[in-house]
This record gives sequence, C-alpha cells and structure tokens, in this order.
Amino acid sequence: MPHITVPHQRPGIRGLMASKPSSGRALSELAEQLLRGESPLTAGERELIAAFVSARNETRYCTGSHSAAAAHTLSGGDYTVVDAVKRDLATAPVSEKMRALLELAGRVQISGLAVTDEHIAAAHAAGADDETIHDTVLIASAFCMFNRYVDGLAAITPDDPAVYDEIGESLAAKGYLP
Amino acid sequence: MPHITVPHQRPGIRGLMASKPSSGRALSELAEQLLRGESPLTAGERELIAAFVSARNETRYCTGSHSAAAAHTLSGGDYTVVDAVKRDLATAPVSEKMRALLELAGRVQISGLAVTDEHIAAAHAAGADDETIHDTVLIASAFCMFNRYVDGLAAITPDDPAVYDEIGESLAAKGYLP
Repeated sequence: MPHITVPHQRPGIRGLMASKPSSGRALSELAEQLLRGESPLTAGERELIAAFVSARNETRYCTGSHSAAAAHTLSGGDYTVVDAVKRDLATAPVSEKMRALLELAGRVQISGLAVTDEHIAAAHAAGADDETIHDTVLIASAFCMFNRYVDGLAAITPDDPAVYDEIGESLAAKGYLP
Repeated sequence: MPHITVPHQRPGIRGLMASKPSSGRALSELAEQLLRGESPLTAGERELIAAFVSARNETRYCTGSHSAAAAHTLSGGDYTVVDAVKRDLATAPVSEKMRALLELAGRVQISGLAVTDEHIAAAHAAGADDETIHDTVLIASAFCMFNRYVDGLAAITPDDPAVYDEIGESLAAKGYLP
C-alpha cells in the first residue's frame, strides 16, 4: 500500500504524479526531454539505460515498464537485449560503445563520485562524444530520482508482466507527456 | 576539470545545463516547481532538505549553494541551523516535524527501499500530512539526481565560501528559472 493516498489507485509513478499534478507535470516534461528529446542516443538506447539503472536500484515498477519500453523501442517487443543487459552487462549483445555507456550509468547509480576519468576515457574510446556522455550521466541520474520517488512512497506495483508490456508499448508509441 | 566541455567555464550545475539548454530548461523548471512552487513546506525548509541530502551525497557544489540558499531563505544569511542539521540531525535546533522529515530524506538518499512504514508513521506523528511527505520524498529524490549529475560530470567546483553565499542569496531572491 502506498505511503500516501493515490487517486483511483493508479499504479506506479503515474499514481504518485496524479497525487500532485504540478510536480507531476514537471517530471513528465523532464522524462520526455531526456528519453525522447534531441540526443545522439536513440530512444531505445536511452530506455536501455533507464531499465538498467532501475534494475540496479531494484525498483520493480520502473524496471518492468522501462524494460518493456526498451524492448518495444529497440526491437518490436523482443526482450532479448534488455534481459541480457540486466543479467550480465559484460556478455550482453550490445555495441562496445553501449557497453561503456551502461558501465558509466552503473557508476552513476552508485554515486556521482564513483565516476572516474577512466570511465569517461573508456566511453570516449568506444566512440561516445561529449553530448552522449552528458545524456548518459543525466538519464542515469534522473532514474536515481524516479526510482527513489517510486520506492520511497511505495507506489502500487503490479505483479503481472503483461501490465508492464502494455505500459512499455504505450511509452514507445506515445512518450511521456500526459 | 569537467568530463565534458562547459561553455565559458561556468561553475556547478549551471555550466552543465548551459552545455545542453534543452535539458537544462527542464531541470530548472523542475527545481523551481519543487523548491519554490506550492507546498506545505516553506522555501527555507525545502532548501534545508536539499542541503542535507547534498551533504549526505558529498556533492560539494550543491551542498555549498543550497546551504547558502537555506541560510538566506530561513534566516537572512545565518548558517546556524543548516550547519547544525548537517553536523548532527539528532541535536539540531529544528522542530520535531522537520527532524522527522530530514530523517525521511536521509533514508531516501540511501535508497527508496530504505524508507519503511515506521519512517512514514514518525513523520505523520510529528504532524506531517500526505503532501508534506510527498514533497519531502520527491525533493530528496531530486537531489539524488542533481548531485549525481554534478559529480558524475565533475562540474567546476569553486573553493571560496563567498561564491556559494552569493549563489544562495541569489537563489533565495530569484529562484531557479533562468
């Protein structure tokens, strides 16, 4: 049960945002900007970072919905890549650039201070430019916010994987604005 | 030295946001909404949460600027309360409600999953309503994002306390919109 009253028992972050629409709107706009706005990263690559960080934070709702969004933006609903990334980044079937960026996102999940010159140099060496590094760090940071918001208020968390698949399909098609 | 090129060597989060104005704008609007928008918490109480979480994350730039913003919004530039809160929350001269909210913010800093029913019950017992709890958790979560963004990209971090005092005075007077 959520720690605060949630209108119409809406699950996940949507229920929390509905409880205070003014901040909900600012959060939706930030998510849209970071995950669908202009970036050298594709929407699918950004959803992969979101799913990976959410899994590291053990936030079930965000992991489920962004894994589904990654599957639907990357490959029409195929979970092979996102499941592999969450299971073992070292062997997952992604480019070396994406592996370095996910490695960087994993450091940010621990702490901003856990990022070293070596992590940045590895991302540069794998072909990432400044904007790619900026967007990776900011998206990973943002999911450390979204995940804490969801778990810190104990958002309603469905168990049925089909619910997340539907959310992810909708996020892939329509994005984050209400 | 920052991990990415920052226009005009601007310090802190402002330099990072200037490097990508589209996401910078969304971040400024979120900060304005959370720290100056409608809330049962005063601007000073919200700046105190921001300073406390930033100190726990050891993010020097954000700790300096939000400690100063707290001093200027709470008490015309007097740092007694914010310094005491960062040094030892248990003995700091704040209300029992504020102590319970900062305790809650400290749990969110660790992880959303570190918040238990007991932390929420303690905040309720000290007089916090649902919206106060919502805003506390969201502000603490947001600083886990801002702090990671700043440290993860190694933002320029001034050493001179006078620089932070000036930033805090300006934030207290003008808020977060560019």
